[in-house]
Amino acid sequence: MASEDWQPQDEQRLDSGAFSIRTDLAREAHDMAVQDRGDDAGVPGVRMDEYEENGITTSWIRIEDDRGAQEIGKQAGLYLTLEIPSLRRQDSELQQRVADHFSREFQNYLQQVGVDVNAKVLIVGLGNKNVTPDALGPFVVKHTLVTRHLFQLMPERVEEGYRPVSAISPGVLGTTGMETSEIVFAVVEKTKPDVIIAIDALASRALSRVYTTIQVADTGINPGSGVGNKRKALNRETLGIPVIAIGIPTVVDAATIAHDSIDFVLGHLNREMNQQQPTNPLDPLNRPDVKEIQSQQISPETGQKMMGIVGQLEPREKKQLIREVLEPLGQNLIVTPKEVDAFVGDMGKLVADGINCALHQAVTPENVSSHVN
Amino acid sequence: MASEDWQPQDEQRLDSGAFSIRTDLAREAHDMAVQDRGDDAGVPGVRMDEYEENGITTSWIRIEDDRGAQEIGKQAGLYLTLEIPSLRRQDSELQQRVADHFSREFQNYLQQVGVDVNAKVLIVGLGNKNVTPDALGPFVVKHTLVTRHLFQLMPERVEEGYRPVSAISPGVLGTTGMETSEIVFAVVEKTKPDVIIAIDALASRALSRVYTTIQVADTGINPGSGVGNKRKALNRETLGIPVIAIGIPTVVDAATIAHDSIDFVLGHLNREMNQQQPTNPLDPLNRPDVKEIQSQQISPETGQKMMGIVGQLEPREKKQLIREVLEPLGQNLIVTPKEVDAFVGDMGKLVADGINCALHQAVTPENVSSHVN
Amino acid sequence: MASEDWQPQDEQRLDSGAFSIRTDLAREAHDMAVQDRGDDAGVPGVRMDEYEENGITTSWIRIEDDRGAQEIGKQAGLYLTLEIPSLRRQDSELQQRVADHFSREFQNYLQQVGVDVNAKVLIVGLGNKNVTPDALGPFVVKHTLVTRHLFQLMPERVEEGYRPVSAISPGVLGTTGMETSEIVFAVVEKTKPDVIIAIDALASRALSRVYTTIQVADTGINPGSGVGNKRKALNRETLGIPVIAIGIPTVVDAATIAHDSIDFVLGHLNREMNQQQPTNPLDPLNRPDVKEIQSQQISPETGQKMMGIVGQLEPREKKQLIREVLEPLGQNLIVTPKEVDAFVGDMGKLVADGINCALHQAVTPENVSSHVN
Amino acid sequence: MASEDWQPQDEQRLDSGAFSIRTDLAREAHDMAVQDRGDDAGVPGVRMDEYEENGITTSWIRIEDDRGAQEIGKQAGLYLTLEIPSLRRQDSELQQRVADHFSREFQNYLQQVGVDVNAKVLIVGLGNKNVTPDALGPFVVKHTLVTRHLFQLMPERVEEGYRPVSAISPGVLGTTGMETSEIVFAVVEKTKPDVIIAIDALASRALSRVYTTIQVADTGINPGSGVGNKRKALNRETLGIPVIAIGIPTVVDAATIAHDSIDFVLGHLNREMNQQQPTNPLDPLNRPDVKEIQSQQISPETGQKMMGIVGQLEPREKKQLIREVLEPLGQNLIVTPKEVDAFVGDMGKLVADGINCALHQAVTPENVSSHVN
Repeated sequence: MASEDWQPQDEQRLDSGAFSIRTDLAREAHDMAVQDRGDDAGVPGVRMDEYEENGITTSWIRIEDDRGAQEIGKQAGLYLTLEIPSLRRQDSELQQRVADHFSREFQNYLQQVGVDVNAKVLIVGLGNKNVTPDALGPFVVKHTLVTRHLFQLMPERVEEGYRPVSAISPGVLGTTGMETSEIVFAVVEKTKPDVIIAIDALASRALSRVYTTIQVADTGINPGSGVGNKRKALNRETLGIPVIAIGIPTVVDAATIAHDSIDFVLGHLNREMNQQQPTNPLDPLNRPDVKEIQSQQISPETGQKMMGIVGQLEPREKKQLIREVLEPLGQNLIVTPKEVDAFVGDMGKLVADGINCALHQAVTPENVSSHVN
Repeated sequence: MASEDWQPQDEQRLDSGAFSIRTDLAREAHDMAVQDRGDDAGVPGVRMDEYEENGITTSWIRIEDDRGAQEIGKQAGLYLTLEIPSLRRQDSELQQRVADHFSREFQNYLQQVGVDVNAKVLIVGLGNKNVTPDALGPFVVKHTLVTRHLFQLMPERVEEGYRPVSAISPGVLGTTGMETSEIVFAVVEKTKPDVIIAIDALASRALSRVYTTIQVADTGINPGSGVGNKRKALNRETLGIPVIAIGIPTVVDAATIAHDSIDFVLGHLNREMNQQQPTNPLDPLNRPDVKEIQSQQISPETGQKMMGIVGQLEPREKKQLIREVLEPLGQNLIVTPKEVDAFVGDMGKLVADGINCALHQAVTPENVSSHVN
Repeated sequence: MASEDWQPQDEQRLDSGAFSIRTDLAREAHDMAVQDRGDDAGVPGVRMDEYEENGITTSWIRIEDDRGAQEIGKQAGLYLTLEIPSLRRQDSELQQRVADHFSREFQNYLQQVGVDVNAKVLIVGLGNKNVTPDALGPFVVKHTLVTRHLFQLMPERVEEGYRPVSAISPGVLGTTGMETSEIVFAVVEKTKPDVIIAIDALASRALSRVYTTIQVADTGINPGSGVGNKRKALNRETLGIPVIAIGIPTVVDAATIAHDSIDFVLGHLNREMNQQQPTNPLDPLNRPDVKEIQSQQISPETGQKMMGIVGQLEPREKKQLIREVLEPLGQNLIVTPKEVDAFVGDMGKLVADGINCALHQAVTPENVSSHVN
Repeated sequence: MASEDWQPQDEQRLDSGAFSIRTDLAREAHDMAVQDRGDDAGVPGVRMDEYEENGITTSWIRIEDDRGAQEIGKQAGLYLTLEIPSLRRQDSELQQRVADHFSREFQNYLQQVGVDVNAKVLIVGLGNKNVTPDALGPFVVKHTLVTRHLFQLMPERVEEGYRPVSAISPGVLGTTGMETSEIVFAVVEKTKPDVIIAIDALASRALSRVYTTIQVADTGINPGSGVGNKRKALNRETLGIPVIAIGIPTVVDAATIAHDSIDFVLGHLNREMNQQQPTNPLDPLNRPDVKEIQSQQISPETGQKMMGIVGQLEPREKKQLIREVLEPLGQNLIVTPKEVDAFVGDMGKLVADGINCALHQAVTPENVSSHVN
């Protein structure tokens, strides 16, 4: 019997909404909404702050009401996004800087959404520890400082500056036979945490975001609602406590890579044309960056000239066409960078350190490594 | 802060009852009881069958009532024990033979204790996957064929000969902050299995049993009841469903090694004396086996002559003396054989294959490896 | 200091000739040559046999002389290629069938290239064991039955049907500080094997080949000859003994994915047009396969209509354009399928079993798993 | 076929001299020699310095000539030993302190034995990476900062404060089919380092030393010279360059545990007798330490009274008796503490950090973790 029969993979998180180009990232959704509106007045019902520092772009987006939610296509809530394009270069100094920054902003985030400094926290590491690009959640759990048992068994020995934290990696449907949500619901009912922090590897909607973006949201984990999907969402409505999701894009499908590449090529050709004279793309002085290329406004005529009928398609249509061709050929592989082991390890360490520092006042970037192994 | 403060280890299963010499193995307890009674008439309230075949000693012990339970010092129930002294030689043919044998006997066992062929099973892999000698349970879970989700999501695609099986590795207190029992209780309430099979690495009471013995019992998991131990047992009384425990000794403490070695030396010297003439212990023709040496009846005089005051002590007292000396020196290490990685892998594979074959009629020793990876 | 400074990666094998579309696979090169020649008369100086059986396409290509080498753009030698498009479905029955088939054909191959049944073999597992998609070689070495030491130390105990085999994973430049070739040369000089079998993970030139193709060649390992590349090739000329390379594509770069996807889209649109009426690509009855789509002859007009200027480019130009755009943006990621752990494990086991059976007459598909763990 | 036939284990280092009680540690040998001589005047031909600081006992022993070598039973050379009894408590602050201390003393050591600050170094990680307690050497290699390739390929980019370092884990006979020494000789001839640093897991001669002791010596690696042992030593005589061995005891055999435990019991009983009144060994105020117990002078009468004939045996005879009894029973297991994974990881990190800091002036305890992952 083929293992495919036996493993209706649980990784729908990784490919949920496979035929949609709706992004999981509020940051992207906000940009699209602004572009659609065609003015710079901002989006009604949405507040957005953004700053860039040391190669880290930090954005805070609050979707305040239903109107904002509808405009952006994301649930109302608070979204914190860190974008660090250089993170894939594996520079350990940058990693340290990002870890410190994430820790501070995440602590800030917890205050913003009203999580008390003594609130009991359950960390949930979603994903399959045996599939490296899906193992980010379990990896973070492994490096989490757990303390709940100390508060239970020997409260007198717990020093100031700690709070009760528990952690679980519930596994995936294919390896447990149980819905992730069944296990989380069960554990929440039994151990009664005040808040959940769930870590989740995401399927990216853009090649450039893989292992370079961290999003924090208080809207919970909401798996795709396809036919036959009996799985329940993990959020405040279903669990009765806040569910803060930390999502990191780790994989991308071939159709997205193809689509993004076509767009990069179009953007590049358009830029060349507008610059009147061809330039050497390998010349560092002339080296464009991803955002510049992506922001090229390409006229329908240029699109057609360069890429024919395909070039004239809307992004949505283009991606759908590519998917519709690749899927039946079995060639719409979901892929991850070759350096997957290092990327998961580095990003997992960064997130775990950030969480540990943010949750316990006694834990600091200087002493975090002596608290956990 | 020292990590010892932060990790009041959960492995009490591995050293629970550290100052007791009561064995976890019914097979040993039965022998002690017979020895104590001093006759061959058997133990009242206890039925015992045993046979040896191809290097595998299989014993079935049924403790029928309170009288038997008291005589033997174990709860009433059915105990199946496989003893395979040669298993540590890592002979793959023997491993295959043991796997097949275990599978047949375990299937037999399930019938004996009334587990229906369609009963829904939850496999629980106890232990810490990051501590190799304690990782046996999680290893078995990883190699378990899980099917419950298929019965839930696509029952029409499940062929004949399978039953619903789910599996979880609940981790240990030190890494989750939650009692193992809290998680298991929660999951049982939510997913309602008909029976639990729990796999557990044990602290051995005898050097010779490490990685050579498998015990199956229907009396559940009953952690030590020391002061401050708030953990609940996992058994039929507490969970409302049968809990079948598969236990395998993987570690032993230094005091046990010392005690057993002293006994081996005493037995050896006694045998030498009785044989009138010294023999070469390295001569294979004269090579004794463990049971022969252990069964030597050593007179108090011989004990004293050979080993002085220590030699005169009861086994219980001797082990306690050694422990009382080693503990405060920090030298009563709990140890495992150097080949721990291979032993855990081989034993885990053997037990997982046996369980998979016993639970699903469609799974056989010939096709088991194509069902799971 | 950025780790990029410190790790001038050794994986040039994985991205050598980054700006070339020359394939590593003789099978592909042969097809291109046939297409270029425009007739079916075959390629001068090249003999080719191919058969399909049970979902496995096996081709034998012998490049007989310099003329053939020039036509095909590959060195003279014997090339055995297995193509198994379904292998990514992780069907364990298929895997077993492929393992058996590979074992037989590889044994056949060894005879063809004149490797004696008693020849002393050194297995070399190229690649970095800490980078999963590059860990195939070390994985195979780990599962290789090594026997040389037995012939050296206790020849009288070695039974019939075995030959001396040794194995090494020399690591990569970035983790040893030494060229792979330095280590292999050194070990060959010291231990004097008669033949080398080197296992190597390759960068694929086509999305569809990743983890579905195995190529055996007797032309050795020839790293890219870029500027500053001081590394010596591993082949009969440099080492004085035959070097048989087993190569498996495990990664692909984003540009290749984009290029192949564009071609798939073009082929699909072309087919649609020629079929006069649009068809549902998800209808299994109408489902095309990769080869059919790839073999579509697309006229320049169609190419231009569908894809504009880009559609008119030669494959070579198209891929180069995409690379030239993606590289400076840092978006030409080298990627591997999400299921990388399982694919490397399954393919590595398959290759190791095949080698073990082919090298030792006493080892068969039935008993191979009892020879190695 | 039994795997035991096929794997004449390479770990003789771990059990070489199985029937000898000669220690690998110069520190112990020196103490024995002093005891044998019965005066405090020191050992002729031997200079010894020792100091204790922060729970770390550091000793420097120089065996100056043949006379000293004969007195102590170790080769002439310089021995640096760190003893840290508390290291098994896994206190991360202590680990950091030991790492810093080891780094300083090892740098000092390199100067003492005349290794130039620019000398090219080859790190050799002895042992089997698949056997956790034997994986210390490969673990250190994995965490070594290698730089030789940078000096070779891009010398202009190497900053001040580094030197050329290469590293290899040659594996073990059972997994490569080649003698470790064959591989090391080959690589030395080909890459011409100025000095070798070899890391090696040792079989301990004392329970208390496992994972608590680090010895550095310039006498190389000298495997047991038993019958049929064709392996060559790795030392200055055979290789022509200095070979500095860093040895850490990671395993101990059951006989040693039994012997040490008997001695601890004897020492304890002796101490009790001399104190006239029994004391509670669990009372921390009365808690003895290992050295105090071990240094108890036990009269033959006491030995006999307490332990009969066995108690009267010389240590050498006692251990030999126990081994002779356990070996034929298959019960002289070589064991390692249950926490083997953590101990190997912690000790390996400590040694790797120490080596990295000692070899490169630009690497310090503060920045070492940004140099290697």
